[in-house]
Amino acid sequence: MKKNYKAIDGNTAATHIAYAFSEVAAIYPITPSSPMGEMADAWSAQGRKNIYGQTLDVIEMQSEGGASGSVHGCLSAGAMTTTFTASQGLMLMLPNMHKIAGEMLPTVFHVSARSLACQSLSIFGDHSDVMSARNTGFALVAAGSIQETMDLAVISHLATLKSQVPFLNFFDGFRTSHEIQKVELLPYEVLAELVEMKFVRQFRKRAMNPEIPMMKVGAQNPDVYFQGREAVNKYYIVTPEIVQEYMNKFARKIGRHYHLFDYSGAPDAEKILISMGTSTETIEETVNYLNKKGEKVGAIKVRLYRPFSAKALISAIPESVKKIAVLDRTKEPGCLGEPLFLDVSTALTDRDIKIVGGRYGLSSKEFTPTMIKSIFDHLDEKCTHNFTVGINDDVTNTSTEIKEEIDAEPEGVIRCKFWGYGSDGTVGANKNSIKIIGDNTDKYVQGYFEYDSKKSGGVTISHLRFGDNPIQSQYLLNNVDFVALHKDSYIGRYDVLGGIREGGTFLLNSSWKTDEVFDNLTEKMQKTIIEKKIKVYNIDALAIAEDVGLGARINTVMQTAFFKISGVLPEDKAIRLIKDAIHKTFIKRGQKIVDMNWKAVDRASEALEQVPIPDSITRSAPIPKLIPDEAEDFSKNVIEPIMHLKGNDIPVSKMPFDGRIPTGTTKLEKRGVSPEVPIWLSEKCIQCNKCVMVCPHSAIRAKQIEEKELADAPDFSLH
Amino acid sequence: MKKNYKAIDGNTAATHIAYAFSEVAAIYPITPSSPMGEMADAWSAQGRKNIYGQTLDVIEMQSEGGASGSVHGCLSAGAMTTTFTASQGLMLMLPNMHKIAGEMLPTVFHVSARSLACQSLSIFGDHSDVMSARNTGFALVAAGSIQETMDLAVISHLATLKSQVPFLNFFDGFRTSHEIQKVELLPYEVLAELVEMKFVRQFRKRAMNPEIPMMKVGAQNPDVYFQGREAVNKYYIVTPEIVQEYMNKFARKIGRHYHLFDYSGAPDAEKILISMGTSTETIEETVNYLNKKGEKVGAIKVRLYRPFSAKALISAIPESVKKIAVLDRTKEPGCLGEPLFLDVSTALTDRDIKIVGGRYGLSSKEFTPTMIKSIFDHLDEKCTHNFTVGINDDVTNTSTEIKEEIDAEPEGVIRCKFWGYGSDGTVGANKNSIKIIGDNTDKYVQGYFEYDSKKSGGVTISHLRFGDNPIQSQYLLNNVDFVALHKDSYIGRYDVLGGIREGGTFLLNSSWKTDEVFDNLTEKMQKTIIEKKIKVYNIDALAIAEDVGLGARINTVMQTAFFKISGVLPEDKAIRLIKDAIHKTFIKRGQKIVDMNWKAVDRASEALEQVPIPDSITRSAPIPKLIPDEAEDFSKNVIEPIMHLKGNDIPVSKMPFDGRIPTGTTKLEKRGVSPEVPIWLSEKCIQCNKCVMVCPHSAIRAKQIEEKELADAPDFSLH
Repeated sequence: MKKNYKAIDGNTAATHIAYAFSEVAAIYPITPSSPMGEMADAWSAQGRKNIYGQTLDVIEMQSEGGASGSVHGCLSAGAMTTTFTASQGLMLMLPNMHKIAGEMLPTVFHVSARSLACQSLSIFGDHSDVMSARNTGFALVAAGSIQETMDLAVISHLATLKSQVPFLNFFDGFRTSHEIQKVELLPYEVLAELVEMKFVRQFRKRAMNPEIPMMKVGAQNPDVYFQGREAVNKYYIVTPEIVQEYMNKFARKIGRHYHLFDYSGAPDAEKILISMGTSTETIEETVNYLNKKGEKVGAIKVRLYRPFSAKALISAIPESVKKIAVLDRTKEPGCLGEPLFLDVSTALTDRDIKIVGGRYGLSSKEFTPTMIKSIFDHLDEKCTHNFTVGINDDVTNTSTEIKEEIDAEPEGVIRCKFWGYGSDGTVGANKNSIKIIGDNTDKYVQGYFEYDSKKSGGVTISHLRFGDNPIQSQYLLNNVDFVALHKDSYIGRYDVLGGIREGGTFLLNSSWKTDEVFDNLTEKMQKTIIEKKIKVYNIDALAIAEDVGLGARINTVMQTAFFKISGVLPEDKAIRLIKDAIHKTFIKRGQKIVDMNWKAVDRASEALEQVPIPDSITRSAPIPKLIPDEAEDFSKNVIEPIMHLKGNDIPVSKMPFDGRIPTGTTKLEKRGVSPEVPIWLSEKCIQCNKCVMVCPHSAIRAKQIEEKELADAPDFSLH
Repeated sequence: MKKNYKAIDGNTAATHIAYAFSEVAAIYPITPSSPMGEMADAWSAQGRKNIYGQTLDVIEMQSEGGASGSVHGCLSAGAMTTTFTASQGLMLMLPNMHKIAGEMLPTVFHVSARSLACQSLSIFGDHSDVMSARNTGFALVAAGSIQETMDLAVISHLATLKSQVPFLNFFDGFRTSHEIQKVELLPYEVLAELVEMKFVRQFRKRAMNPEIPMMKVGAQNPDVYFQGREAVNKYYIVTPEIVQEYMNKFARKIGRHYHLFDYSGAPDAEKILISMGTSTETIEETVNYLNKKGEKVGAIKVRLYRPFSAKALISAIPESVKKIAVLDRTKEPGCLGEPLFLDVSTALTDRDIKIVGGRYGLSSKEFTPTMIKSIFDHLDEKCTHNFTVGINDDVTNTSTEIKEEIDAEPEGVIRCKFWGYGSDGTVGANKNSIKIIGDNTDKYVQGYFEYDSKKSGGVTISHLRFGDNPIQSQYLLNNVDFVALHKDSYIGRYDVLGGIREGGTFLLNSSWKTDEVFDNLTEKMQKTIIEKKIKVYNIDALAIAEDVGLGARINTVMQTAFFKISGVLPEDKAIRLIKDAIHKTFIKRGQKIVDMNWKAVDRASEALEQVPIPDSITRSAPIPKLIPDEAEDFSKNVIEPIMHLKGNDIPVSKMPFDGRIPTGTTKLEKRGVSPEVPIWLSEKCIQCNKCVMVCPHSAIRAKQIEEKELADAPDFSLH
C-alpha cells in the first residue's frame, strides 16, 4: 500500500477519523477543540462521505449539555454518533456521559484536553478535564502525537463497537490539537476494511424501535439498582483485551503497533517515568538521549487509561525497575496524589518499587528534556512524592531541581523561530511553509505556534522543525538555527535571540538602512551576534508590501526571505513553490491579488541584504523601561516579567493565592507595536465620542466641561 | 449546660447548622436534599435569625448550575453563603465548584449523597455524586448519623472560615436525610461562641469592593497558570490540622470528640474495615458484637475525606492490623478500585497490610451486620479485591459469601414495623409517634421510612426503634417485636410477618370480624403465628375513621391502637400525648377537626380486639397469582420478585446490562389496594374522556365508533 503523508494538525487528524466512522456529530465548539466541530461541519457541507458512503449529519446545539444529550439520543436511536469538546464543555457533558456509559452505548468523544477554570480560566492544555471524566464509565485513550491521535482514534472507534463501552479519545490541547506535523493520513478504504459489520449490526439491533418497543432511562429503586450496576462488569473486564486486539489488527494492516502500555528505554532500567499524552514523546526522546550517554532509564506510555489494566501495566515494566515517577498533567487539591499516580501505586502494591508522583505541564506549561532529566535526578536524590516540575515552587518547595540544561534533540533537525504580531500573517505563512516543505520533500516537519490569549494584536512565536526522522520534541525551540523578527519594536522587550546557536541566522524586518541595523540592536543582542558569529539579514518588508499594494501584510515578503536564507530548499524551487501556493490561495480573489504577491516574492528576493557586523560595539539601542519604579509589587513581580515573556520564571510566591489581581494594570503595557500613530484632527472631530469607546487602554476619555473652565487648560493643539 | 434533645431527621440537622452560619442560601431543591432548601426558605420567611442576628436570604435559581453560580457570586461579594444539593444537581455544580475552590472562597455545601443516573435513574442514596466532586478542591466531610451530620456541619462551617478552603458536608441520602432520631440540638448561642470573628473579617476583607477594586475570574496563560495552582498548597496542607483543631474545640464545648479518622474496636485487631457515612455506625455496632463474641476486629470511620491526611489515617490504625477491607459506596466502571480504596491503598504503601476494596450499599441497598460479618469472613478466606456485598453477583462472582445471619443489635431495643399505603397517613403518624416518645421519655428513638419511587399509592414500611442508648443500627428491621398491617390487601403479596420475633405482636386493620381474621391469613402467616406464639389484634380502622368523619384517614386510629398494645408508654399517658399532638397539629383547621380525631382515639381504644388463635390451621387465604405462566422471562425473573418486595434477591444475571426493559408490564400489577371500586354510571357520563387520561393503567380507553358497529357488542350495562 502506498503511504499517503500530509502535514496536518491534531484536530484534523481526529476529525478525519471521527468523520470516517460516524453518521452524526452533535457539537458545540469550544477552544481548543473548535476546529474539529467546524471541520466536520464544513466537510459535511461539501458532501464528503464517511466509510459507509454517508454524509455526516452535524447538529450544533445550544451548549455542551445539549450536544451530549443529542449524542445520547442519537445513540439510542441507533446512529453512530460522535462529539468534540474540552474543558468546561466536557464538564457539562458529564451527566450524559454517566447515562451513555450506564446504557452501554458505543461512541467516541474526541477531546483536545484542556485546563479547567479554577483560580483563573485558561484556554490551554492539560488533563484536568478528562480526569474529571474518569469515573463516568467511559474508556479513556491517550494519544501523544498527531499520528497517534489518528491511529488511536481508529482503534477507539473499532473497540467501542465490539466492547459496547463508550470511548473518550484525548490528546493534548494546543500541543497536539494545533501543532502541525507530517503524518500518514489513513485512507477511508483501508479504514472500511477494519470495521467488523457484525458489531455495527449488534449496535443497531439495540436501538429504540417502535416495532419492538422497549423502555429505557427509567428509575430503579434500592432493590435492583446495585445489581444493574454490576451487570456491566463483564464488558469492562474484556475491554482492555478488545483494545489490544484492535491494536494488533491495526499493526498488521497499517504497520504501527501499539499496546495498552508501551515501554521504551533500557531493558534493564532501574528508573522509569510513567505518563500520558505528548509528554511521552519528549520523554522517549530524552530517555534515548540519556541511555546513549550511559544511563539506564526507561518510560511507560499509557495508551488505555480506563479501563485500567493492572496486569498489562505490570507486564510492561522491566523486572529491574526500582523507582518510578508517575507524572500527572492535572492537579486535584487535597488529594493524596493525582489520579495516574494513585492507579499506578495501587497496581504495583505487590512489587518492591519506590513510586512517587508529580505534576507537570499544567495549562500547556513547557515540559522539556531538561525537566525530564531533573525528574530522574530527583529519583536519585530527594525522591519525594508530590513534586512539581517546570516551575519554581518557592512556597511549599515541591519543585525538582534543575541541575543541568540538556539538548536531547537528535542530530540533523533544523530549528527556525519566527517572531510575529497577531494578525500580521506570520503564523499563516509559516503553516504554508511547513506544508510546502512537508509535501514537497522527504523531510518530516513540525510547526507549533505560540500565542497568548490576546490572539490578534499579541505576540506570536512560530516554532518550526525540519528533519529526516519523525519529530518527537513536544516543546518549544530552545536551540535555534534561524530566528526571524517580523516586528522591530520587540527589540529590547523580548529575548529575541535567546537560544540561537553558534553560526545561526537572524532575519530582521525593519525600516532601518542595512548599515544602521546593528546600532539599533540592544547590547545583549549585539554581543550574542558577535560572540556566536550570527549572520544577520535585513529587509524592509513593510515598504515592499505597501509598494506592491499589500498594505501591512508582510508575510509573503518574509516567507520568501526565509526560504532564500535558510536553504531548506534550493532557491528557485522554493520560489516556484511559494508562487504556486500563492496562486492556490489567492486565485479565488482574482489574478490581481496573485500578481501583487508574486511581485512581493520577486522584490523580497532582490531587497534582502546581509548586515555587516563590526568587531566591537559602539552604540546600542536603549532598553525600554516598562514599569515605573513606584509601581506596586504585583506590577513589578508579575506584570513586568509577563511583559518580557518571562512569565515562566515567576515563582509561586509571587502569585495571588485566590486569583485576585489589581485593576488598571493595562496602562503599563506600552507596547509600541503600531508602525503608525494616530493624530487627532480637531477640525474633523464631530465629538461622536466613539474613540472613547474604542480605545482599549482608555487613553482617550470624554469629559463634559464648561467653556470657562478651559481658560487655564494647557495647550493641546498640534504642533 | 442543659442539653436539648429533639427527634429530627438529617436534613433538619444540616439545615439547623447551615442556617446558623449563613447569610445567603442559593438553592435549587432536589431529592433527597429538597427539605433542606425548603426548610431554610420557610424559616427565613418566619424571620428566624442566624447566629449573627440576621435572617437568611434564600434565593431559588433556575437549576443547580444557577444556584452554584449564585453561591460563587455571593461569596465573591463577601456574603457567607451555603447551598443544598445531591446527585445530578451536584454534577451541575461541578464547574462552579472548581472556581469557588480555585478562588479559595469559604463555604459549606450540604449534600444528602445520592446515586447518579447511569443504567437508570435512582433517587436513593450512595456516594457516587460526592465522589465526582473529589477533584474540585473542596474539602469533603462525611457524617454517619443525624447527630454527626449536625456536629460535623458545625466543624465544617468553622474550618472553612479559617482554612479558606470550601467544604462539602455529606451524609447518606434517605438513610440519614430522612431518618428521624433523637439527637442533641445545638443552640445558636453556643454556636455563636465557637465562631472566631477574625476569620469572618478575613473573609469580608477579601470580598469585591468598589472602594478597593480588584480583578478576579480572569484568564491565565501557560506562563503563570501552573504557579497559580500551586499557590494553594499551603492552605490545603494545614486544613486537616484546622479541622482537627475545631473537632477538639467542639469536644471541649459540647462533649463529643471527633477525629479525622476515628478507630473503634479491639486495640489489637488484625482485621479492620474502613468506610464513610452510615455504614460506619452499623460497622461499629457489629464490631462491638463480634468482639464480645471473642473476635478481634475493628473499623475506621473516615470523617475528613479531602484533604486526605495519610498521616492521620496511619496513626489511627493499630499496629496489629494485617488485613483491611475498604468499602466504597460508589462504582466507577473501569477503575482499578473505587476512590477510598485507592487512597487507603496508597496511604498504606509502607505498611505490610493486605488491603482489598469492595462496593456496598449502592442506591440505598441494605448494609447489615450479617453482610459486615461476611466481609470479615471474606478477609479470612478468599480475600479478593473488588468484591461486592449485599447482592448476588452470579455473573462475575464478586459477592462475599453470607455464612451466618447475625443480629448485632444491642439488648433492650424495641422494634416496630408498620405496613402502610402511600398517602394513608401511616408515615406521618409514625413520625408523630416517634416525636411523642422521643420528646416525652428518656428513650432514644429511630424512625426510617421505606417507600418506593411511586410515593403516593405505593407501599410504605415504617421501621421504628426505641431504646435506652443511642441507636446505631443503620438498616431496616430484621427482628421485629411489633408488626402493624394497615392494608389487608397486602396479605399473601408481601412477607408481612417476616422477621417477627417469638412472642411478638401483630396488629391488623381489616374489615373482617375478629373471629374471621385468622382464616383470612395465608398459611405461612398462620404457621408463623402459631409457632412463634404471636399475639394478634384486629381493628376496623376504616369503619371508625369513616364513622367519625375522617374518611379514609386511618392514621389516628392505628396510632392509638399501636400505643395501646405496644406499651411503650402507659396507656393513659399515651392517649393524653396523642390528643395533645392532635390538638397541636389540627387546631389551625378548627376545633371540629380536633374533635373528630379525639373521637377516633377514644373509639380506637374501645374497638381494638385480640384475635383468638386456634391450635391448628383449618382454612387459609389463597396466594394471589401475580404473573401469568405465559409471561416472558423478564416479568417472571424481575417484575414478580419486585412485586413481592423481594427485588433484593434478584441476581445480577437477571438484570439487563443496559437498562432496557420490556414495555407494558404495568398491566401485571393488579395490586387490589383500593377499598372501593369505581363504577361507571352511563347516565351521568358526558363523554369528556378525562377518565382515559387519568387512569394510570390505561384500563379505560376511548374509541370513536359508528353506532351500527355496536350491534354485536357484549352487554356492559350494570347488573
